[in-house]
Amino acid sequence: MNDQDLRKTKRSRVRRRHDRGSYERDDINEIVDSTPMCHFAYVVDDSPHIMPTSQWREGDRIYWHGSSASRFLRKVVGQQVSLAVTHLDGIVLARSAFHHSVNYRSVVLFGEAEMVPEDEKVDRLKNFINGLFPGRWDSLRPITDQEIKATTVLSMLIDEGSAKVRSGPPIDDEEDYVLPIWAGVLPTEMRSLEPVADPSNIEGVLVPSHVANFSLGRK
Amino acid sequence: MNDQDLRKTKRSRVRRRHDRGSYERDDINEIVDSTPMCHFAYVVDDSPHIMPTSQWREGDRIYWHGSSASRFLRKVVGQQVSLAVTHLDGIVLARSAFHHSVNYRSVVLFGEAEMVPEDEKVDRLKNFINGLFPGRWDSLRPITDQEIKATTVLSMLIDEGSAKVRSGPPIDDEEDYVLPIWAGVLPTEMRSLEPVADPSNIEGVLVPSHVANFSLGRK
Repeated sequence: MNDQDLRKTKRSRVRRRHDRGSYERDDINEIVDSTPMCHFAYVVDDSPHIMPTSQWREGDRIYWHGSSASRFLRKVVGQQVSLAVTHLDGIVLARSAFHHSVNYRSVVLFGEAEMVPEDEKVDRLKNFINGLFPGRWDSLRPITDQEIKATTVLSMLIDEGSAKVRSGPPIDDEEDYVLPIWAGVLPTEMRSLEPVADPSNIEGVLVPSHVANFSLGRK
Repeated sequence: MNDQDLRKTKRSRVRRRHDRGSYERDDINEIVDSTPMCHFAYVVDDSPHIMPTSQWREGDRIYWHGSSASRFLRKVVGQQVSLAVTHLDGIVLARSAFHHSVNYRSVVLFGEAEMVPEDEKVDRLKNFINGLFPGRWDSLRPITDQEIKATTVLSMLIDEGSAKVRSGPPIDDEEDYVLPIWAGVLPTEMRSLEPVADPSNIEGVLVPSHVANFSLGRK
């Protein structure tokens, strides 16, 4: 991910819809919404920590959750965090080692982790499940008070950060284009496969449409 | 990624081959070697930062590189970093919202970023390219002194950290298995697609075997 290959590189306040740069916010939303997978960086005792987890977006906020017993989640509330959502879209093979690169779409955001209030948690978790699988929430065994209590939900405002995208063929030095070297892109993608039923499912339970229609990594 | 679902959760010194826990080091290597894609967390001015980048492993070390002009790379030398390599292997649908989860393989490592000496950089970069595409380095336009100078290579020792893996069907509350709710896994995978030649390739250049045989995300 060479700096020179980045289409947008500046760390900056996220431009809002009413600004001329409104496209950036749309890019961020699209990249973030294409996968639940993300990584958070946080600081504990002056040291950097990284955590892969699942996220979902509602409007101007990113949400994530975990066990209320989690040391990480307790420590992170009120603290600065940095979030990355990254899609690897391909490996870019150039005619020189130096110009090899990767195609990708990534979002990096900076913000403060906020605790979602007790009385909002169920709505947020419902939107997480239904965002991935429309309608699934109401088909499930209802969530219990104990489960709600055991779950911490955090959020951060989408305010500071940027989207970066690289796509297309390699960009080689002008004089290298005559060389008899294969250059191009090996595209990569994250995809979901056919659902695998739990062997413990009771007989006659059909695959619901929210499972059959699921697709990850839509571009 | 519920704590309860983790097969191995302890942050710890990576167990070495001569220890009884030698399997953990093998897990780490396998997960790290399955994709160049990773995220680093680092601390600048007391704030957490996250950076997606490419990595490669040689023995006990992880390497990464970037522009010698990069503010990040200059600041990170001699500092603590945290590295994550994560494969999302599926979304786990349970009979209750609470037991929904994801299948994944991840490695999180902690260490200090070290500068690779000037006279070792070419060997490291060669191994990066050839690690992905065996033999490609020697087929390329040779790297120049200026390109070597413009490239910073960093490394960290694989010493502290752990691998975590979740796989298999959901684990529901015992009394929920009788419910008529579809449960199971939506497997996900990162895969590479057919190579796309640069339209600027000169006529007659064939796809080399190191491109034709490439496969990402091998499990």
